[in-house]
Amino acid sequence: MVKGKVLVAQGGGPTAVINQSLVGVVLEARKYAQVERVYGALHGVRGILNEDFLDLSQETTLTLEQVAETPSSALGSTRDKPDRAYCQEIFKVLKAHGISYFFYIGGNDSSDTVRIVSEEAKAENYPLRSVHIPKTIDNDLVENDHTPGFPSAARFVSQAFIGANLDNRSLPGVYLGVIMGRHAGFLTAAAAFGRKFPEDGPHLVYLPERTFSLDGFLADVKATQDRFGRCVIAVSEGIHDEAGNPIAVKLASHVEKDAHGNVQLSGTGALADLLTEEIKTRLKIKRVRGDTLGYLQRSFAGCVSDVDQREARDVGEKAVQFAMNRDQDGSVAIRRVGNYAVDYQLIPLSAVAGKTRTMPDEFIIAEGNQVTPAFCDYLRPLLGADLAETTQLRGIGNRVAKILKK
Amino acid sequence: MVKGKVLVAQGGGPTAVINQSLVGVVLEARKYAQVERVYGALHGVRGILNEDFLDLSQETTLTLEQVAETPSSALGSTRDKPDRAYCQEIFKVLKAHGISYFFYIGGNDSSDTVRIVSEEAKAENYPLRSVHIPKTIDNDLVENDHTPGFPSAARFVSQAFIGANLDNRSLPGVYLGVIMGRHAGFLTAAAAFGRKFPEDGPHLVYLPERTFSLDGFLADVKATQDRFGRCVIAVSEGIHDEAGNPIAVKLASHVEKDAHGNVQLSGTGALADLLTEEIKTRLKIKRVRGDTLGYLQRSFAGCVSDVDQREARDVGEKAVQFAMNRDQDGSVAIRRVGNYAVDYQLIPLSAVAGKTRTMPDEFIIAEGNQVTPAFCDYLRPLLGADLAETTQLRGIGNRVAKILKK
Repeated sequence: MVKGKVLVAQGGGPTAVINQSLVGVVLEARKYAQVERVYGALHGVRGILNEDFLDLSQETTLTLEQVAETPSSALGSTRDKPDRAYCQEIFKVLKAHGISYFFYIGGNDSSDTVRIVSEEAKAENYPLRSVHIPKTIDNDLVENDHTPGFPSAARFVSQAFIGANLDNRSLPGVYLGVIMGRHAGFLTAAAAFGRKFPEDGPHLVYLPERTFSLDGFLADVKATQDRFGRCVIAVSEGIHDEAGNPIAVKLASHVEKDAHGNVQLSGTGALADLLTEEIKTRLKIKRVRGDTLGYLQRSFAGCVSDVDQREARDVGEKAVQFAMNRDQDGSVAIRRVGNYAVDYQLIPLSAVAGKTRTMPDEFIIAEGNQVTPAFCDYLRPLLGADLAETTQLRGIGNRVAKILKK
Repeated sequence: MVKGKVLVAQGGGPTAVINQSLVGVVLEARKYAQVERVYGALHGVRGILNEDFLDLSQETTLTLEQVAETPSSALGSTRDKPDRAYCQEIFKVLKAHGISYFFYIGGNDSSDTVRIVSEEAKAENYPLRSVHIPKTIDNDLVENDHTPGFPSAARFVSQAFIGANLDNRSLPGVYLGVIMGRHAGFLTAAAAFGRKFPEDGPHLVYLPERTFSLDGFLADVKATQDRFGRCVIAVSEGIHDEAGNPIAVKLASHVEKDAHGNVQLSGTGALADLLTEEIKTRLKIKRVRGDTLGYLQRSFAGCVSDVDQREARDVGEKAVQFAMNRDQDGSVAIRRVGNYAVDYQLIPLSAVAGKTRTMPDEFIIAEGNQVTPAFCDYLRPLLGADLAETTQLRGIGNRVAKILKK
């Protein structure tokens, strides 16, 4: 085992538990005699380029444990998506600071960064162990049963729609909520988890795994409204037409792109407002409300799955154990065993880097506008303890006979 | 004490704890020998007009206790605002069904309904006890220290902004969140409660109690961005210009009004989108995100203040006790005693009906764009136990010296 420093960084969108992984790395790494220092890069790969490092060897265990419970990336994050030239600059900095162990917590773009840095080190015969630690609320990493961050975000979305359904039941009309997820519909699908009674919403769920047709959508809404006198809808921000054009973009006055070339979908209420406007004008329904769940989904303080917390901590700690005990770079993957437990494996970076997982067909009903019980079975053990339990008055058998209007 | 039936109903926007008040009424009322039945009207006053009653004497205690923990109005609600003719119809139904005790859980419009019904009964010398039970997330009832529903909504908003601040710290830029509250800024002000470190957001808070100037707003945002490299903003949906025109309406393609003549402000992302667009185009800031917290604020399942739950239960039970033991109609008011306890009083309906309370000046700083410590002192005991506790890495003293870019 090589003597040297550890460097850890956080990339991409924050999650409610990403600091658990950070703290898992730091506390485990500080135990090894060959680790001289544990550095944290501020704002991901950009902080590496700028040599913006904190010496995390100087943080107390108690502070780190409190940081672990804090949502969002404590080191800061970045949307930079490094190409090979960028990664070569990263590698120069790692060499200059005597980094022997590099851990990057992030999604599939981050795993691609780790892959290139790993290749650079090999090409130069520099002793560097590079491990990617999974994180994304989108749950879109291949080779993983699920990814840290997703269960807590799914818990938030599920509880939001339990409430939205009850609110809509109380003041009937159409309610539409837009949920994060560009290509993968897992998080949107979580909206349907909390349905309990047959008439509960969301009655309709639209995912990026299926082509979105405005006419089909309006027909679905009308049918639901006719049947229940109300309609609750969950829509992924990533819904798109047959050509793959996001519905959100079709109406935008201008389009904002990030460094990955992705069109900006979050941080605006435009999609919800377009769809509710179509329902109002074309279906002549009066009370139509649209919400965009926005950044609350990934950083809300106080709605965390304890299962997610533990697994996020575990993958950080496992990454260090893999780095110290195995002679290969890789990505930590979560595999489900039994019902319910998980196993952590170190898989090749090339197996996960830059790839996107989407919802399997068995999680979506044939009509394409609702999830299956199989999806709820998949999600149930991830959401953690103490989920909100709601009910309704039994009511139906206890109707009082009318006197004046009989 | 008159023999007869009890009728309870829920009006206006739902809250996370409105069913606690309902169950407080039902369980207490079922103890009295003179109470023949406990009816619940579906969808508020509209359900009374339609004689849509459930016999709540037939619900088990356990079901009622589970309903109490369920957000949103279990009996359904209405936006109808009855005039005298409407109230006379209500009164006819009450007479026909032998109702001797009428309880209406709602805001200031609902208290006005109770006032008119109470007057109708007196005019006809019909033995009816009518009591209004306070409820509103807006916290805008006069004569009350605060209103049931507000503490839980404030807890949600506070935790949402703790997360939004950390998210924005991780990926810097401008973040703007729009919060419910047409005339009263209490709920928007709660966004600032969770600030812990000097650089924490929301850095700016805009309330309906102060006139909103777009130029002043943009100057504030620029100054904050220049100082911190980022800016988190909380905005009330009710912000308005000098003439009282809501900023949200100035840009709406069409304007929707409810039965109270109020312009529809919630259920659309328009205000957030307008303000973020102004920031992007006029301040040339690239990363600007806007969220509208929407219906999650009042009905999210799983973010409830235990203090709020207990008080909401109490005001329901107290309403029945007042009705049984006092020879007057009225509204149950919450008064703060000591630090922290509350006392419940029965006050005249005319003292609260149709009036709106707004934030006192001592809760808003002179510049009008942030709350004072006095507001946080006021809010603290209401938010309940187990608030999310967050922290950050100590960092500053632990910076690693640069090597390549020194």
